[in-house]
Amino acid sequence: TRHYIITLLPDDGIGPEVISVAKNVLQLTGSLEGIEFGFKEMPVGGAALDLTGVPLPEETLLAAKQSDAVLLGAIGGYKWDKNQKHFKPEIGLLQLREGLKVFANLRPACVLPQLVDASTLKKEVAEGVDLMVVRELTGGIYFGKPRGFGTNENGDEIGFNTEVYATYEIDRIARVAFETARKRGRKLCSVDKANVLEASMLWRQRVMAISSEYPDVELSHMYVDNAAMQLVCNPKQFDTIITNNIFGDILSDEASMITGSIGLLPSASLGEAGPGLFEPIHGSAPDIAGQDKANPLATVLSAAMLLKYGLGEEKASQRIETAVLDTLNRGFRTGDIYSEGNKLVGCKDMGEEVLNSI
Amino acid sequence: TRHYIITLLPDDGIGPEVISVAKNVLQLTGSLEGIEFGFKEMPVGGAALDLTGVPLPEETLLAAKQSDAVLLGAIGGYKWDKNQKHFKPEIGLLQLREGLKVFANLRPACVLPQLVDASTLKKEVAEGVDLMVVRELTGGIYFGKPRGFGTNENGDEIGFNTEVYATYEIDRIARVAFETARKRGRKLCSVDKANVLEASMLWRQRVMAISSEYPDVELSHMYVDNAAMQLVCNPKQFDTIITNNIFGDILSDEASMITGSIGLLPSASLGEAGPGLFEPIHGSAPDIAGQDKANPLATVLSAAMLLKYGLGEEKASQRIETAVLDTLNRGFRTGDIYSEGNKLVGCKDMGEEVLNSI
Ligand SMILES: CC(C)[C@H](C(=O)O)[C@@H](O)C(=O)O
Ligand SMILES: CC(C)[C@H](C(=O)O)[C@@H](O)C(=O)O
Repeated sequence: TRHYIITLLPDDGIGPEVISVAKNVLQLTGSLEGIEFGFKEMPVGGAALDLTGVPLPEETLLAAKQSDAVLLGAIGGYKWDKNQKHFKPEIGLLQLREGLKVFANLRPACVLPQLVDASTLKKEVAEGVDLMVVRELTGGIYFGKPRGFGTNENGDEIGFNTEVYATYEIDRIARVAFETARKRGRKLCSVDKANVLEASMLWRQRVMAISSEYPDVELSHMYVDNAAMQLVCNPKQFDTIITNNIFGDILSDEASMITGSIGLLPSASLGEAGPGLFEPIHGSAPDIAGQDKANPLATVLSAAMLLKYGLGEEKASQRIETAVLDTLNRGFRTGDIYSEGNKLVGCKDMGEEVLNSI
Repeated sequence: TRHYIITLLPDDGIGPEVISVAKNVLQLTGSLEGIEFGFKEMPVGGAALDLTGVPLPEETLLAAKQSDAVLLGAIGGYKWDKNQKHFKPEIGLLQLREGLKVFANLRPACVLPQLVDASTLKKEVAEGVDLMVVRELTGGIYFGKPRGFGTNENGDEIGFNTEVYATYEIDRIARVAFETARKRGRKLCSVDKANVLEASMLWRQRVMAISSEYPDVELSHMYVDNAAMQLVCNPKQFDTIITNNIFGDILSDEASMITGSIGLLPSASLGEAGPGLFEPIHGSAPDIAGQDKANPLATVLSAAMLLKYGLGEEKASQRIETAVLDTLNRGFRTGDIYSEGNKLVGCKDMGEEVLNSI
């Protein structure tokens, strides 16, 4: 048996419910595949703020660093919305990404045939969409310095941030994106705003330079405004997209909503070495927290990504993905993806059904 | 008779074709409404680069400043795509916005009942969408300094830009947005990334402060990633959106594509005083340039915005809008919005039909 230590960060809102399902799924899968998991639960975000006064306690970061992979539920909620800058739950997430140095965020957006009706796009536009956004996650305007508040020459108060990329940051995310594209449809579209921003000009230049290492992957470039349009009018044209932190934040959310089943979408954040961070892309949904209504599948599929990208356990990962599809095929649906003729279940029961399918 | 001087900037690609239609429409409308136009054509963008070596010749900016309003066709094309930074056609547009100090960009996105099928969104999601994006146009990361290329502490090459907003810049665009919302559905949604960016925190703070001047307008706030999603899943929830330059670039394009009839969408860019800049939101479409295939309606409707927002000629503006609707009702369609059962026409003929409707 292989042994792995997994840090679980259930945290806020529906987080604990969906993490509990994913944990059971990992355990059962492990027992069938000869894998033993040691789980360690730690607080982050709002839960950590309540407990310790900071959104990412040192012990949590340390535990995360010392584990083989990190699985996060969800962060944030109304309760902390009015907190000052450094005491917002989201800051815990940013600090965690920075602390784990997970610079590559992989966000698949896939329209399953079973759920094509859930999309607000016309069936012929939505069906067959299967794209992956590779978002740079630890650089750009999220972390760039200088940043803050001040006054300009005229004495006006200003707020400012710096969008900055260094060649090494672009090169390493580009390599992840080309590798990802290579395992998919061998088409990579780099999204930037190189007609206006110097940071984007360097981005484009470096992505083009790295592309010479991947002659088998077809590279194209698109301005971010156009990409936001193309995702709406013809999402099928995309295979793999690479983009910076802020554009990736916007476009990956847009892409996920195009699938119409955001309660199903996982994500992986990876670094050069060290544990990866895996989380559903949905939020903490405070309005349905604790009511057994959440869709646990995004977290279950995040656990599958954890196995594949975090631990190299492809077979176990595949087992989970197959079980999720099987559960959907058997007609089980949580409220967010429910449509007539299917069986409406809560979070726990959905988890049970996935276990049955495994 | 009232007299106005209009600077026409036909420029690149399909620009000259659509501007020529809009000019005829303005002239006929003027003759019926007691308005006399003096037109002055000047080069900008690619055409200016070819002619003078710079994307915004001094004479063009001067003519624009001395006129009552500026109508632009389209800018850019493959030909100049590889030009260096300062010699790109788009730079001419940015310099024009800066030179005319048109800080407020109004971009309506409206789904006409006649064209609801053109949207890639399901009918029930698309029908009735009628929103206005108010985008800040002369500040933020587009113009912020410092910007450029350099090296960091480790000797890595970097590219950087500055996202910066001063209180007065936010205050004035906020007032335009609240005024706009007041004339529409009295709902304003401010889009930012205040959970991460200081520039956005100041943005939110100032928009909230200005909202006290407009107690009759309902203000809400949304993060930009969520806004990108909400535009896809429920665009009808929006009335007026206010956002910064780069988010506005992305979201207004996304919103326009949601209508499915981007060949119909106009825009207005306004300053504190001085002439406004009016242009269709579509690009220069070099692939169909000179083939009499372009849809001139976006430019015609930009001329209507010019009359309304630029010259205060509401009645003449209304006359053009009504004529466009009438032309569509009579079944005339250019290729981009054609559907079975309608009459396919080219750019010129579409222009003739609008003239007939007037
Ligand atoms: C919560 C927020 C800071 C975060 C981000 O902007 O990166 C979120 O939107 C995401 O995409 O994971
Ligand atoms: C051409 C480009 C510089 C411009 C912008 O980014 O503002 C365009 O996309 C627009 O929205 O008018």
